[in-house]
Amino acid sequence: MITRNLVNNCLNTKYEDIPQEVILHAKKSILNWMGVAIGAAYHPSVEMLISLKNDLQSSEQVSILGRREKADLLLSTLINGMSSHIFDYDDTHLDTIHHPSGPVAPVCFALAEKFNLSGKQVLRAFILGVEAELRISNAVCPSHYDLGWHITSTAGVFGAAVAAGILLELDEEQMLNALGLAGTQAFGLREMFGTMTKPFHPGKAAENGLLAALLAQKGFTSSKQVLEAKRGFANVTAPEHDLEQVNINWGTQWETLKNAFKPYACGIVLHPAIDACIALGKQVSDPSQVKEIEITVNPYVLELTAKPEPKTGLEGKFSIFHTGAMAFLEGDASEEQYQDAKVLDPKTLAFRTKIKPVVNESFEEDEAVAKLTTVDGKVYEYKVEHATGSIENPMTDEALCNKFRKVVKGILGSDSTEAIIAKLYDLDSVANINEVIPYCTPQTATV
Amino acid sequence: MITRNLVNNCLNTKYEDIPQEVILHAKKSILNWMGVAIGAAYHPSVEMLISLKNDLQSSEQVSILGRREKADLLLSTLINGMSSHIFDYDDTHLDTIHHPSGPVAPVCFALAEKFNLSGKQVLRAFILGVEAELRISNAVCPSHYDLGWHITSTAGVFGAAVAAGILLELDEEQMLNALGLAGTQAFGLREMFGTMTKPFHPGKAAENGLLAALLAQKGFTSSKQVLEAKRGFANVTAPEHDLEQVNINWGTQWETLKNAFKPYACGIVLHPAIDACIALGKQVSDPSQVKEIEITVNPYVLELTAKPEPKTGLEGKFSIFHTGAMAFLEGDASEEQYQDAKVLDPKTLAFRTKIKPVVNESFEEDEAVAKLTTVDGKVYEYKVEHATGSIENPMTDEALCNKFRKVVKGILGSDSTEAIIAKLYDLDSVANINEVIPYCTPQTATV
Repeated sequence: MITRNLVNNCLNTKYEDIPQEVILHAKKSILNWMGVAIGAAYHPSVEMLISLKNDLQSSEQVSILGRREKADLLLSTLINGMSSHIFDYDDTHLDTIHHPSGPVAPVCFALAEKFNLSGKQVLRAFILGVEAELRISNAVCPSHYDLGWHITSTAGVFGAAVAAGILLELDEEQMLNALGLAGTQAFGLREMFGTMTKPFHPGKAAENGLLAALLAQKGFTSSKQVLEAKRGFANVTAPEHDLEQVNINWGTQWETLKNAFKPYACGIVLHPAIDACIALGKQVSDPSQVKEIEITVNPYVLELTAKPEPKTGLEGKFSIFHTGAMAFLEGDASEEQYQDAKVLDPKTLAFRTKIKPVVNESFEEDEAVAKLTTVDGKVYEYKVEHATGSIENPMTDEALCNKFRKVVKGILGSDSTEAIIAKLYDLDSVANINEVIPYCTPQTATV
Repeated sequence: MITRNLVNNCLNTKYEDIPQEVILHAKKSILNWMGVAIGAAYHPSVEMLISLKNDLQSSEQVSILGRREKADLLLSTLINGMSSHIFDYDDTHLDTIHHPSGPVAPVCFALAEKFNLSGKQVLRAFILGVEAELRISNAVCPSHYDLGWHITSTAGVFGAAVAAGILLELDEEQMLNALGLAGTQAFGLREMFGTMTKPFHPGKAAENGLLAALLAQKGFTSSKQVLEAKRGFANVTAPEHDLEQVNINWGTQWETLKNAFKPYACGIVLHPAIDACIALGKQVSDPSQVKEIEITVNPYVLELTAKPEPKTGLEGKFSIFHTGAMAFLEGDASEEQYQDAKVLDPKTLAFRTKIKPVVNESFEEDEAVAKLTTVDGKVYEYKVEHATGSIENPMTDEALCNKFRKVVKGILGSDSTEAIIAKLYDLDSVANINEVIPYCTPQTATV
């Protein structure tokens, strides 16, 4: 009954049942998602999908965020979900290292654009989709992720299907079929990290979940117990799991509130180390005085980011060496610090050999200590209890808006930029999503 | 190096390197696949995909077999792959219970139709795709299937990517990326068996594999060791595996030759029982004289087909009770015996309670014994060593052609039917696949 209970919980949760703080956090999540999607809209991998769109002669149904092209409902959803994860700058549910908006938000915006839906409809669908995917992630973590599944797409496809099902007004049986059809399409190997295929995962999960709901609406049949069946999602993909987590404290516990936003354009596991290196960079201004910086972190950090000699900006995001060097040298870890040229800059190369990561099993994932030793033998130490962007130390509204402005700069004009920020903070008053969408399209054909 | 070796084995195998008996068996596989795809072209689940095609305003690039509609390259591939598995009447690699043509053939025909490719190009791509997927299946079976993965789609997506990569003339690095992008999209839970989602699996696997190759051709990057990586396909989805099987005896051992065709429209595990019940039906003509028919089978049979009270034709295919009754009463197990009306017919219902399945661990999968006891206490027994359609007891060319004629009847006229049979048996002489495709389109708008 796990799957059926989840479906009923979703269908029975009206917009009015959702607390205002959850609504507000969803608005911020959407703003954050839309910014990083627009910011990556001209990445080479997106250009390849645009080329595919042309090959397929896809119909112009839904906007591709940050571009003038449109594609059909499914392909545009894939592209907008993929682009939002390209910079590794999107949101994170730290308990499960799941990036919740990528698979869910593009589904909401695609359907809302096509069917002229309201901001409140989008907010309800988004929140229920995010609750569904994150509760499923809670149920299968950590064994599912440890085995090698990229949980953002494997659990994300359920969130995409729930969000689509809510907006398509599926009934209980249709929604069960949609979850069956979504769950059987769950995919995504962690082996792909560091390649274009990683951001492809949430995009395709969004598309697969939307496809599931569209077919379920037409009467397509599937398993109605995809989560709990003997050969269903949990048993097949998670050696250990606790399906109680899927429906526990529904309506009082909101996973949406645990969604954290990244101040830096790389995996969230690196953020405490970045905070610490930025702080040390303010204390020691001359790089030539630095003998080494020892950074102590949670073991996950080195499992994911131990690349000593990155060759591209993308690889740099998976390198604590490059990232620590940038944070110290430039005081930031934005997209600018992950350009290919930065990774290959001799100054960066020379400095990154001074970064010495150390693992400490007792450290939390949002904790780090950086210890700088100068060539003269002086020692500076900086301890980060909770990284900026964590739940305990969240980004301020101002910081979040500035992040949006920074990532869309060069693509959108400032009028459009400010209009989007205002509309999304007031999303519950937006009668038709098509009041927002046109601002996401640049005014000139090329940027 | 497993993945790279597979890629090089495929790229280095020219058409001329493939033995004639393998070419002939591939032709038969394609004929069998095309027949069951055309035969199911008006199934309700296909109608739902056609409706989706209309919603998406998909461009008319590639034919949907057995229909007058076309769809874009990707969507038509999904539909033609799905339709071929709807009747559970397609081909089977018995060692792995993998149905190899469904994920591979639609990719070959879609690309060949769009780019005017030859029969020889299709045959080479088809055979290499089938070799790749079946060798991967060999490597992960049985633990992968036992865990709950529908191997036809999970391994099939690799075959689809290889076939597409061959026809798109990918180079070594592109093909590696295509396999990475394909393998990370591997999906399909056995929990879906008995619903429309089961045939959806090979169709979507075909589409995913084709998408992988199309993106790889544009430069999309992925893991180049998807099969053997620590968090790659084998380690994540198969508790036990032997990746040596992927490249072993390449060029001398042909898995394509182990592809068996079904004389009956249900899972191949039921075929020995059907042969036995048909034989008994010829000995005892009056059903009222039958007290019971005990059928002894391999354990897999009851794991998959123990449904005692099917309510639909589709469920009937997963019921040894319905299937045994039909084989005895009507001497066949074609689509006709799996119509909803047959499953609900009071005569069938009364007789199927007489079917008593028994498991014997020592029985092979293509072996069965049926023992009929009459109300008078007489006993008739019939033993099947190798079911019709098995490698040891294959369908004849005549039987295969008659199966094609039977499944496409009512959709294609007899001229088109005979033209397709002739063209496919002579596929190596076909200069352009578009010499065959028009025969797959019915002459009238509705059937």
